[in-house]
Amino acid sequence: MPGHLGEFERIARFFAPLAQGFPGALGLTDDAALITPPPGRDLAVTTDTMVQGVHFMGDEPPGLIAAKLLRVNLSDLAAMGAAPLAYTLNIALPAETGDDWLRAFADGLAADQRAFDIGLAGGDSVSTPGPVCLTVTAMGSVETGRALRRGGAQTGDIIYVSGSIGDGALGLRLLRGELAGLAQEQADELIGRYRLPRPRIGLGARLVGLASAAIDISDGLAADLGHVLECSGGGGAGPAGAEIEAAAVPLSDAARAALAGDAGLMEAILTGGDDYELLFTVAPGHAGRVAALATDLAMPLTPIGRMTAGGGLRVVGVDGGEMVLRRKGWTHG
Amino acid sequence: MPGHLGEFERIARFFAPLAQGFPGALGLTDDAALITPPPGRDLAVTTDTMVQGVHFMGDEPPGLIAAKLLRVNLSDLAAMGAAPLAYTLNIALPAETGDDWLRAFADGLAADQRAFDIGLAGGDSVSTPGPVCLTVTAMGSVETGRALRRGGAQTGDIIYVSGSIGDGALGLRLLRGELAGLAQEQADELIGRYRLPRPRIGLGARLVGLASAAIDISDGLAADLGHVLECSGGGGAGPAGAEIEAAAVPLSDAARAALAGDAGLMEAILTGGDDYELLFTVAPGHAGRVAALATDLAMPLTPIGRMTAGGGLRVVGVDGGEMVLRRKGWTHG
Repeated sequence: MPGHLGEFERIARFFAPLAQGFPGALGLTDDAALITPPPGRDLAVTTDTMVQGVHFMGDEPPGLIAAKLLRVNLSDLAAMGAAPLAYTLNIALPAETGDDWLRAFADGLAADQRAFDIGLAGGDSVSTPGPVCLTVTAMGSVETGRALRRGGAQTGDIIYVSGSIGDGALGLRLLRGELAGLAQEQADELIGRYRLPRPRIGLGARLVGLASAAIDISDGLAADLGHVLECSGGGGAGPAGAEIEAAAVPLSDAARAALAGDAGLMEAILTGGDDYELLFTVAPGHAGRVAALATDLAMPLTPIGRMTAGGGLRVVGVDGGEMVLRRKGWTHG
Repeated sequence: MPGHLGEFERIARFFAPLAQGFPGALGLTDDAALITPPPGRDLAVTTDTMVQGVHFMGDEPPGLIAAKLLRVNLSDLAAMGAAPLAYTLNIALPAETGDDWLRAFADGLAADQRAFDIGLAGGDSVSTPGPVCLTVTAMGSVETGRALRRGGAQTGDIIYVSGSIGDGALGLRLLRGELAGLAQEQADELIGRYRLPRPRIGLGARLVGLASAAIDISDGLAADLGHVLECSGGGGAGPAGAEIEAAAVPLSDAARAALAGDAGLMEAILTGGDDYELLFTVAPGHAGRVAALATDLAMPLTPIGRMTAGGGLRVVGVDGGEMVLRRKGWTHG
């Protein structure tokens, strides 16, 4: 693709150093990168785009934007049970974007490349008259034929989630000024969860051969569990069903504090997006293995309900009655 | 990544049909696609972004925008000698984008998927307050360790180009009203070359094991040959050199007609972008194999000069004197 002559210098200065650790990047000087999964493994490929004004405001630290961009993709790899391998990066930036912004953005990528053992393989850098538009395409490897899928859940399987649910959605409410009364430390924790996902790469890899289905919670617990139901199918022709208990959904201390101030926030917790935890299903006979895995990883893995033969998603509220969710998922983007 | 609820319907209606032919797409319903190169082959990965107002105006037929987006990536695969396998697609569209636009865009992709034997593996669909921003990441396969590279040219190798050079650059001048006096049919031909690249996939595959270096001409003949020089290295420590003859550069009848009206256009022909032909180098002893390949593919493969031990790029003008290019390459993007 023809590029501004400045593109070559920009790539050489800020991005070629990020590609040094990945030989298949060919130093970012060739027409394509060479990426081959190790023998006996499939390549899992996922991609996400973030637009300024939609997925981020633009006044965040550039390194944080870079980290979120990479991590939402890593979370998808985690949901497939894939180990990170390499990624490509496409940046469309306004002409006035300065070197300071680029340096901080590249530094954010460099830190996460080390943290998640992934290398830059290639990309494209173009100018835009509009908002910043960023795309990462991440590639990971997973044992051939054993990738975690959304569609394998069976009636009676236990539904688990990792970590805590709802923090990202509450963090966004705080940023929007729609939630008040929390201690500053708790508010900061929730905002941090919204701004910086923690992709569950290590957990995903350990769920291969154990979970019957898995998905990362990006659209919200209810919506993403809904995707599992649609893909898994029930005993008959229709989609599978599930019953979960709101009281069982794991919450952070900060989310508990928010909920204590407004019990109505439970709906936001169950339907808000940006958790980037894993939801997965496991045959009842393997519950002990999940408990051992939680200990091994020092990570909460909490059973919140069961797969049923149909009937959609049924949520038992904290009061024991059925909870009707007004909306199923997140709507930005 | 959280998405507008409309995203799911949009993907189901317009893009899931494009993924039906590629099993690893998993119906676009999972967190990642599964893509594995055939045994004994590497995966070549390339990506390009196109922004409305920079790489296209936006009033072109949507199918043409889709085809160009896919083909600039396919041209990069061709330059590596890779056979197309699958691609991912990221679209950031303004909220007012209608279904008619999306249908025509998807139809353009569908036609080129058939023409180039490539399947849709995954992607992301988001909204943007700004101009349309489109990314394709294309994956192809090439025999392990035998991908064509920019860096293998040796002193004395013959420099070839496929097809005809300069048509795209002249087509852009026509669109900008900077070139007149051509017959309508010839003008249409040049504009068509600018709007719709013809990636040389078949040629690239046949150059594996024959060419010592290859690149697709997207930044302009002079600039892209310059990339080969930088990557190949000369006899000493510096970059390789090359001498080409302007009179040998293959031109279409339409470009010849334009040049007859203004001999000064030769510089635009040598430095303009958007040819999407292949430039490649071959050891002198293999010239006969290239001639046979040209016959076999019914495609002009024209020797335009030789690699030298250094001294940069020297261009012999049509008058026999040295031609000094005021600029080396294209500057949009």
